[in-house]
Order: sequence, then C-alpha cells, then structure tokens
Amino acid sequence: MKSSFKRYVIGKPLRSDTLGEQKLNKRKALAILSSDALSSVAYGPEQILIVLMTVSTVAFWYSLPIAVGVVVLLAALIFSYRQVIFAYPHGGGAYVVSRENLGVNAGLVAGGSLLVDYILTVAVSVSAGTDAITSAFPSLHPYNVFIAVFFVICLTLLNLRGVTESASILAYPVYLFVAVMLILIGVGIYNVATGQVPAELSPKVGTPVAGISLFILLKAFASGSSALTGVEAISNAIPNFKDPGPKNASKTLLAMGGILAVLFIGIVSLAYFYGIAPNAEETVVSQIAEASVGRNFFYYIVQGTTAMILVLAANTGYSAFPLLAVNLSKDRFIPRMFQIRGDRLGYSNGILMLGLAAIILIILFDGATEHLIPLYAVGVFIPFTLAQAGMMRKWWREKPKGWVAKFAINTIGAVISFIVAMMFFVTKLPQVWPVFIFLPMIILMFHRIKKHYQAVGEQLRLNNEELPNVEGNVFIVPVAGITKVVENTLHYAHSLKVDKIIAFYVAFDQDDAKAFEEKWKAWQPDVRLVTYYSPYRSITQPLMKFINKVEHQCVKTGHQVTVVIPQFIPKKGWHHMLHNQSSLLIRATLLFNKNVVIMTVPFHLTK
Amino acid sequence: MKSSFKRYVIGKPLRSDTLGEQKLNKRKALAILSSDALSSVAYGPEQILIVLMTVSTVAFWYSLPIAVGVVVLLAALIFSYRQVIFAYPHGGGAYVVSRENLGVNAGLVAGGSLLVDYILTVAVSVSAGTDAITSAFPSLHPYNVFIAVFFVICLTLLNLRGVTESASILAYPVYLFVAVMLILIGVGIYNVATGQVPAELSPKVGTPVAGISLFILLKAFASGSSALTGVEAISNAIPNFKDPGPKNASKTLLAMGGILAVLFIGIVSLAYFYGIAPNAEETVVSQIAEASVGRNFFYYIVQGTTAMILVLAANTGYSAFPLLAVNLSKDRFIPRMFQIRGDRLGYSNGILMLGLAAIILIILFDGATEHLIPLYAVGVFIPFTLAQAGMMRKWWREKPKGWVAKFAINTIGAVISFIVAMMFFVTKLPQVWPVFIFLPMIILMFHRIKKHYQAVGEQLRLNNEELPNVEGNVFIVPVAGITKVVENTLHYAHSLKVDKIIAFYVAFDQDDAKAFEEKWKAWQPDVRLVTYYSPYRSITQPLMKFINKVEHQCVKTGHQVTVVIPQFIPKKGWHHMLHNQSSLLIRATLLFNKNVVIMTVPFHLTK
Repeated sequence: MKSSFKRYVIGKPLRSDTLGEQKLNKRKALAILSSDALSSVAYGPEQILIVLMTVSTVAFWYSLPIAVGVVVLLAALIFSYRQVIFAYPHGGGAYVVSRENLGVNAGLVAGGSLLVDYILTVAVSVSAGTDAITSAFPSLHPYNVFIAVFFVICLTLLNLRGVTESASILAYPVYLFVAVMLILIGVGIYNVATGQVPAELSPKVGTPVAGISLFILLKAFASGSSALTGVEAISNAIPNFKDPGPKNASKTLLAMGGILAVLFIGIVSLAYFYGIAPNAEETVVSQIAEASVGRNFFYYIVQGTTAMILVLAANTGYSAFPLLAVNLSKDRFIPRMFQIRGDRLGYSNGILMLGLAAIILIILFDGATEHLIPLYAVGVFIPFTLAQAGMMRKWWREKPKGWVAKFAINTIGAVISFIVAMMFFVTKLPQVWPVFIFLPMIILMFHRIKKHYQAVGEQLRLNNEELPNVEGNVFIVPVAGITKVVENTLHYAHSLKVDKIIAFYVAFDQDDAKAFEEKWKAWQPDVRLVTYYSPYRSITQPLMKFINKVEHQCVKTGHQVTVVIPQFIPKKGWHHMLHNQSSLLIRATLLFNKNVVIMTVPFHLTK
Repeated sequence: MKSSFKRYVIGKPLRSDTLGEQKLNKRKALAILSSDALSSVAYGPEQILIVLMTVSTVAFWYSLPIAVGVVVLLAALIFSYRQVIFAYPHGGGAYVVSRENLGVNAGLVAGGSLLVDYILTVAVSVSAGTDAITSAFPSLHPYNVFIAVFFVICLTLLNLRGVTESASILAYPVYLFVAVMLILIGVGIYNVATGQVPAELSPKVGTPVAGISLFILLKAFASGSSALTGVEAISNAIPNFKDPGPKNASKTLLAMGGILAVLFIGIVSLAYFYGIAPNAEETVVSQIAEASVGRNFFYYIVQGTTAMILVLAANTGYSAFPLLAVNLSKDRFIPRMFQIRGDRLGYSNGILMLGLAAIILIILFDGATEHLIPLYAVGVFIPFTLAQAGMMRKWWREKPKGWVAKFAINTIGAVISFIVAMMFFVTKLPQVWPVFIFLPMIILMFHRIKKHYQAVGEQLRLNNEELPNVEGNVFIVPVAGITKVVENTLHYAHSLKVDKIIAFYVAFDQDDAKAFEEKWKAWQPDVRLVTYYSPYRSITQPLMKFINKVEHQCVKTGHQVTVVIPQFIPKKGWHHMLHNQSSLLIRATLLFNKNVVIMTVPFHLTK
C-alpha cells in the first residue's frame, strides 16, 4: 500500500539507462532555471524605491540611473557566467570554479553560501508568493504558514517526479508571466508616450534632492541588485541540459539576461512615470497595473501570474541545490547520500533536504521571511565575487588565445560583485551579520565530515595485517519464557557449530527466578540456564553485565560471543504496538557498545 | 549523559522491594485524589447560573434548591462508593465492579469511559487553570496553549518521580485552596448575616419566573452535577493507600465529600446573596471575592489558589488513569506495557500516555477545551451508573447481613446517576454525541486487542507437535565492497558449521558488476559470489529475489537461510548520519517478510 501511494505521487521508478531522456531543452530549461531571476522583477524595483523614499519622493528620479546600473551589473554577470559555462562544462558553478582556482576553502565558502542560499530562495519566494495570494484573499491570511508549507510540499513532490516533468508543467506560468509583464509594460509606455499620463506625477530627472547621499544611493543600488539573485543557477545545472550542454546553457543564459533587463527597466520606468510610491498595503507592480489598465480582468491576471512566479522562483533552488550537493558530496564534504539517484533519477535526498529545511525556516519565521532577503542577497554576491575572481586567476595562469578580453569581462564582474557584497555588509549589517557565524560553522562542518570519511576509508581498507581467526563460538540466548519462539531459536542454535549455548533469564523477583530455573531444567536439561535478578527492573543492564563476564573468558581463547535473540513476528503491523520492543533496545545497545554478533531468529505468527 | 539528565529530572531508580514506602497516608491521599472534585467548586456553581440566566436573572433563586439536589447526589455517590471500596478492596472501581457483576462489556463501557475521561480531566483542568492565569496577566494570552502544554509536562514529570513525592508537593496548594475558600465563605456569610449586603440584590426565593421549565431546571442540575466528576477516583486508587487500604480510603472519601458539600453550598449561596450574574470577562468566584472582600491582597490569593487548584485537578487523572490501565491490561484489553513499573515504581507508561494524549487534545482544540466539559461529565456518569447498578446486583445475589440498607444506598446512587446521565444526553446532545462513536470504537479495540493476545498465546505455547530440526545452513552475505568489514564477517561465518556461504553483490551498472566479480575472485576464490544488476537502483529488491531463489532450494532439504550483514560501527553518534542506513532497511524488510535469520556482524571503528 505504502509503495503504491508513493508511485501515485512520485510516479513509477525509472531505469538507470533512461537517464538521457531526463534532459532539458532550452525552452524548458529557461522556464525552470530563470524563474528565480525573473521573479525578482516583482520586488527588486520596489526595494529601490523603499530606500529612496527614506529621503523624499523627489528622489524617485534616481531610480532610473540606479536601474541602469543594475542592468550593467547584470550584463557583466551574464557574460562572466557564460565564460564559466564554457570553461567548466560539467557544471558546479561558483563552487568548482573557486575550488579549482582559489583553493579548497574559497570553494567551500562559495559552495556553503550557495547551499544556504538555495534554502533561503525557497523559503523567501514561497512566502512572498503566499503573501501575494493572501493579500488578494484576506480571509486566507491566518493560514499563511500553512499555505506556504503546502506549496513547498507541492514543489518538492513535483521535483521528486523528475526535472523534465516539473519543467513541462512549470513552463506555462513562467512564459505567461513574461508575456503579461511585456503587455503591461507595452500598454504603460504607450500611455506615457501618448501623453495620457500627467507629466507632473514624476519629479524631473536631475532635480536636486535635499538630504540625498552617496550612502543612500549605494544602499538603493544594493537593494535593487537583489533582483540579480538566481543568475548563477544555470551554470550549476549544465548536466541537466540536452547535448551540447554548454552551448545550450549559454544560449539560455543570454535569453534570460535579455528578458530580465527588459522587464526590470520597464517596471522601474513605469513606476517613475506614474509617480508610484511604495506602501505597505499594495505592491508597486499592483499599483502600476492599476494605474495603466485599471482594476479590470487583466489587472487580476497580472496579480495572479506575479503570485505564481514568486512561488515558482523557489523551483530554481530545486534545480540547482541537488546538483551543487552532488559536487560537494563527491568531494566528501557532505554526506554520501546526496549522490544517490531516487526512483525518478533525480537526486531525491537533495530535493527532500531542501524542502525540509525551507519548511523549517518558514515555520521558524512564522512566514515572515522577508527579514531574510538581505541575508539571501549577500549569500549570492559572495559566490559571485569568488567565481569571477577564480576565472580571473584562471585566465591569468593559462593565458589562452584572446585571454585579455575574457580576463577583462571577469574582472568587471568580480569588481562590481565585490562592491555590491561590501555595500550589503556596510548598509545592512544588522540583517547580514549571521553570515559571519554560519559560514565559518558550515565550513568547519565540511572539513570534519571529510576528515571522518577519510578516517573510515583508512580503517576499512584491506592491509597486510590480517584479522585474527575466530577460534570458537559462545551463543547467549536471552529468554523471556518457555515458548515455541525459544524452542525454534534453540533448534537453530544447535544446527550451527557452537562450543557453548547459554540461555539467559532476567527475573524481577527472587521467587520467579527459582521457579523458572526448575521449569527450564525439566524442559531443556542440556542447555545451561543463567538467571540474574534485576532489582531495578532493567533487562539490558543484567544482560550487559553477563556478557562482560562471558567476554572476559572468551578473549583469552579467541572465542566470539554471539547474542541470539528469539523474536516472534506478528502478522499485522498494528500488532507491534501490543508487544514490548525490548529486543530492538537490546539489539541497539549491544551493537554499539559491545563487540558481539547479534542474531535475530524470527518466529512468524500465522494469525 | 542522557541517563544522568533523566536521573536529574525523574530521580534515581528505586529497587522493586521498596514499593511499600511509596504508599500514601490519608492526608496526602486526600490532597492528590480530591483535587479534581474540589476544583469543581470553581466552575460548577457558574455552570448552574449560566443555564438559569438564559431565562432571566430572577430565576437565580433556583440555584439554591438545585445546589441542594447536587449535594444529595453527592451524598448518595459518596456512600455508594464507600461500599465499593470495602467490597473491592484491591481497587479498580467502576471497571472491576461492572465487569464482575454486569459482565465484561459493561465493564469495558465503564473502563473505556473512565480512561477517556481522565484524559479529558487533564486537558480541561489544565486549560481552565491556564485561562485563569492569562485572565490575570492578559499579555500572556497568546501563549495559552504553550503554557498549558508546559503545565502538562510538569505534572507528567512530577508523577514520573513517584506518587508520594508528587503528593508531598501538591498537598500544600490543595489545603491552601480549601482554607482560602472557607475564609471567603465565612466572610461572605458574615457580611450577609450582619446585613451589610442589600437584600434587593437577590430575587426572593419562590418568586414566580416567566418562561422557566422543568427542562431548564434539569439542564441546570445536570450542569451543576459536573462538579461531581472526580468522586470515583479514590475507589480506583486503593492500592496506593497505606495499610489498611480500604479503611483509609473510605475515611478519605468521607472527608472529601464533607469538604466538597460545604464549599459547593457556600459558593452557590454567596452568588445568590450578592446577586452575581456570570459574565464572560470575570468568573463567578472572582466576582464573589471582589464583592465580599474587595480587590485587596486576599482577592489575589483567592484567584491564585483557584488557578492552582484547577491545574492540580489534572493530578487526580494522573493518580487514577495508570491504575485503571493496569487493571485493563491485566485482563489483556490494552497493551501489556501499561503493567510495567518505571524507574520510580510508578506505572510510567500510563503516566506518559496520559500526558501525551492530553497535550494532543490541548493542541487540537487550541486550548479552548471548555467545549469538552459536557463530554467529560457524561463520560463520568456512565461509569457512576454502571458501578452502582453492579453493586445492586451484587447485594441482590449475595444477600449478606444487612444487605437491604446497602442495596438501598446503591439504588439511590444508581437512579440519580442514571437520571443525570440521561439529562446530559437530552439537554446537551450536540456536545455529547461523540460518545456514541468513540465508546463503541474503544470497546471494539479492547476486544480486538484481547483476541490478538489470545491468538499469540496459543501460537507460542509448547504443544505436542515439535518444531522440525534445522538440517543445515546457507549463509548469504550481502557485500558492498572489498573491505575489512567483509573480511571480518567472512572470518566469523567460516567459524560456524555452514553448508554454503554465498556473497551477494548488487551492481548499479553492468561494467561495475564485471569488475567487482574479477576483484572478488582474486581476493576470495573459495567464497562464491553472486552479482545482480539493479536497473532501479534498489538493494533490497534484488536481495529479496535472490533469497527467494535460495529458499526454494532450501525448503526441500530442510536448510535454513541466514542473511549475515557486515556492518561497521562508527565511533561517535553523529557519524551515523554520514553513512547509508541501508543495513537497517534490509534488516527490517527481511525480518518481517521472509523466514530468514538475520545476523549483524559488527566491525567497530576506533577513530
């Protein structure tokens, strides 16, 4: 039953040799890998205006040059990452580039930041999408956390079904969002161009603003740059592309950059021309839509697709996180389980871990994950900077044909990314300080895990010292009564070549001990019975004590102690609740604390 | 560490032979077993007034005759249960009495109702106590559920420490509450007697009231009778009393009845004389205190002790539930684990189960458990009725000396209890209907559990058919690589008398299979290796398939199949997360589905 439910939700298992069919074409890849970046259009422009408003609404004209700055940074990043794609065609993005060129620790800083960042992406975007929905239907507001968690579960299941399947489903809303935004921008610009929008709504470009400072402008620029998160996702996910992977990935990256630039500039311009000020009740996009087309059917389509794209932005995390985890896991910095492909050939452990971590964050922050946005942005610009710096180093060392141009592009990318990262640290320290705690912790953890794997490898490797032979065997059979289960176990024990079989009984009072000994002698006169009285009603403690005693003898003669547990297996699952699970406890305690072999001899009940 | 934490919270384990020291004297027993009944004084009178107010405040004078009725019922119940105590000196109360005299199903109805009822007691009283506290400190209101759960955890831990210890601590607040209530009633009556309270506050007794009906009066009586829940607890808990148990229990019961009658009549009278009407903002007790003594220091003591007694009322459930569970468990209607004494000699599984169920109810109802009060009252009057009817039957059959008087007392108790139960069904059906669903379900569950235990008993009992001997052994060793762990396991397998040892390897691709086979042949030429290719990347499925094949052969020759799992044991707990737990999965799947012995051969890592 459990398995058929799983099949229904996730789909039938796929054979390993059908992996090739699970690759993405450019159209689908653009949809699932760019949703994060494109969704930033819904909040990036607003972030700029919020900072400018702290001075005065007259300062809003600065949003235009700031948007141009953001687009320049975007272009630098797109071209830089395009070079990363061709230089590292197997994917891995910032982690691999930094590790190869700047050393392991730089790689771990980049990888650790991104790993945490994808979790934040999921939590932040799903919460933002949920907010958009509950703003439209305020009666749903009390269920915010519940709805957000529900979306995360849906996305997790969809991704467990496999990357092509999720791409096929998610392509529609992403392209719909792009189309709707382009129409909105088109209509808005037409209105402005035909003079239907009063010019006095917008402050003249160049108007002097009292109280404006470079610090404010940089802060606004940094806030706007949060729209660029997600740009690196394609470089992580090259293995998911149809052949030729790097070429397809690069084209997809350029297409994404183009669309993002148009939408970003478009929304910022409309906000400027319509003189829109951010307010807590209504988003900037909603105000723009209302101003340009009114509260008609199209307005609700704008709102609906915006909510959808915010939720789907999370999907970029689902595409990139598992592949990054595979890379870290191959280098043994995180558990091996992240390399295992699930039933549908996706890296299901990574997908599940991402979903789980996002749900925990959403619940912990009670759905108010907007406090995490600065943390999330700085977590992106650190790996951006490291990746570009790594590429600079690569070109400088290898000096291939035409390296100067390549070096120049990456240098521009590195410098701007570094400046943005620094701006975040300077302007938003109260929100980003946790980076200084969790990044070192994560990197320490990476190293400890690697060290453990190395130690295990050494201990498991065959070497010249052969293990000593087992000279003989002593079986200890803990018995709880005189039953068929015990009879069955003794039959089995007798069939193996054993030097000694000892039955062991724990009595809770002294009279019981004597009575049991007599009954045993009558039933199994040839099997020695040892009885311990347990004043504190524990079974494990007396057993451990007895094993210690027996082991003390066995060590001298090279004998191995084996504990043989008689266990009846009920016919139905719920029956287990009705029986003491002491055998499980005994097994776990002995296995981890003593050098004894544990045997479970089952006796299956038939009704 | 885990164990030393447990010791700190629960206390050192106690030896089984110190059980006698864990018994209660009358003073302590009265405190912990009557807290439930006494706490009803805090809400019972209010319940009566709430019903009367639906007609008119003039109807309040009816509260006096209704209170007298409640006290008559109380007296009948006290004397009835006194006879139960002497007739069944080993405890068990309504369950044992009904089972012995009216048959198993009547016993199960009584036992099932009480079991659920004690859970409701804990949830309802702790929630009520929490409400009293958060009414005093409204800023705590949002944390209602959290505070209630915290109290339940405290009570659970206190009871896990043992019954004498909890009694010693809880005696103070219970006696303080009684003293404070007596003072309050004394001051109030003095004020009334000295004419300081205007007579026009209270409607004259006998004033005709428009719209009053027998139905309303019965409803008010039934609501007031909810103050009598908890009266049966002492009869369940006789085994906890110091010798002579029945005599001490009976005296305690009489003392409780006396105190309860005085407090109940006192509070109802004061409410009447001061003309107090129930309102949502302030409890009746709070209004009485304010009216008689004003908002001074004493007022806050009244409020504080009332809140305390409401929380502590839950403790009665903790005393009675585990003992009732032991009785049901001895008859095999609920799992055996309820008979196991914990470290501190209390029936810790019952205590834990009660706490857990109460926490679930509190969370499910978001702390608003007052909706459960009618359900809880009806769940008490069903066993009241059955217990008294059972006693009637007993006297009738046995006819001991002076049986007519005894029979008469129980008949009065039975009739009034039955009437109250019926009134609940008639007047509060919308709240009590779940009884008709959950009671039959619980009784069905009781019977299914008993049937299962009987079936297991039969199958385990030794009989004349001896089990067949094991004629020989085949060991299957699943291997994941060529390592020291496997070497260690093979050494062990060779030391036992085995007809065949087969190593089994699951390959995820065809090339890997070949390469492994060659390496194996070079390393262990004498141990046969079987390799299966797993296109769906499962390890368990190919193993199951192979075992089926081997078993097919073995069945013919009487050979036993054993799966020998090589397992390395990491040195530290957190290391487990870094390794696949596939051995656990294999073990569980095989144990429950196949008739194979499972062996785990540990290889302990040293670093």
